[in-house]
Amino acid sequence: MEVFIEPIGRLMNEFSKLPGVGKKTAQRYAYKVISMSEAEARSFADALLNVKRKVRFCRVCGNFTEEEVCDICKSRDKSTICVVKEPKDVIALEKLHEYKGVYHVLHGVIDPMNGVTPNDIRIRELLGRVNEGGVKEVIMATNPDVEGEATAMYIAKLLKPLGVLVTRISRGVPVGSELEYADEVTLSRALSERKQI
Amino acid sequence: MEVFIEPIGRLMNEFSKLPGVGKKTAQRYAYKVISMSEAEARSFADALLNVKRKVRFCRVCGNFTEEEVCDICKSRDKSTICVVKEPKDVIALEKLHEYKGVYHVLHGVIDPMNGVTPNDIRIRELLGRVNEGGVKEVIMATNPDVEGEATAMYIAKLLKPLGVLVTRISRGVPVGSELEYADEVTLSRALSERKQI
Repeated sequence: MEVFIEPIGRLMNEFSKLPGVGKKTAQRYAYKVISMSEAEARSFADALLNVKRKVRFCRVCGNFTEEEVCDICKSRDKSTICVVKEPKDVIALEKLHEYKGVYHVLHGVIDPMNGVTPNDIRIRELLGRVNEGGVKEVIMATNPDVEGEATAMYIAKLLKPLGVLVTRISRGVPVGSELEYADEVTLSRALSERKQI
Repeated sequence: MEVFIEPIGRLMNEFSKLPGVGKKTAQRYAYKVISMSEAEARSFADALLNVKRKVRFCRVCGNFTEEEVCDICKSRDKSTICVVKEPKDVIALEKLHEYKGVYHVLHGVIDPMNGVTPNDIRIRELLGRVNEGGVKEVIMATNPDVEGEATAMYIAKLLKPLGVLVTRISRGVPVGSELEYADEVTLSRALSERKQI
């Protein structure tokens, strides 16, 4: 980036760290920032720092929250827990305005090829929640890919002896895809047609 | 963005101000920031503020610089001035490592439909530079679109009485396109095959 003066090259370098952002896009973003007012740039920078300062993980479900326990855990039906891989999957499901239970974010799936073992994701915490009692159903809503299926099966095996109903979202979700990109109808159907596993 | 907690929604909103960034992309960017370390986020925020603080326009050519006069104006052959619409066009030409003269950034082109008159862009400053003497050639390298052509012609008419050679980059650049997106071979050829206007 030697044709760029240092402050611009540096900002481009930062933008390049965002997913899918190449040199050209980083340049467009940097030029946009230069054309912003001082106040706008400050507001942008503040939002960046603010998100790191304020966002943490819910002590119960592992989703993003500003408090110790998230709003969903505080206010919703705790007898149903929907287990997902990542916080973005909670967003995808919440957009349906249909599900009334709580969530459990694993922060990953079992993936031995990449060194992710059951101990590396929040399975222990899930078992703890079910052991506390009051849970009737656990919906496994991990992605319908190899690791997601394996993780769902693994967790189901651990949960069944605890006398809880374990279900899996239906395969309405296109196999091999990611939950985040499913259209709402498909996702809604996958949720309503879940079956016991 | 009501499904997002406030700090995330706010950061997504900031990312949405960048060109071509929709809700989904803004979400991916925001989640990436959350996954960064505190230090990384701070470095990102600093780069944003830094660019606003340090980048200004060269008093001579109007290009981005950290000083009063940019490095190109300070060190290069002042007998040839290449006139472009925007700072990003300087970058596109500098990447060729071929042009040895200086630049003049107009910061726009004449565009009466959108209320941009000759007085709104840096034409006066260009005439001033030529009037100071020592300039042999002015290369009009505005975009090969309607406004770019009209601006080139308008400026050429003003410059010719001053006894300077005025040239236009050749139409090797695809007509209707933007300079920024031309491939290097095309752009290089357009520069070498420039003709007097």
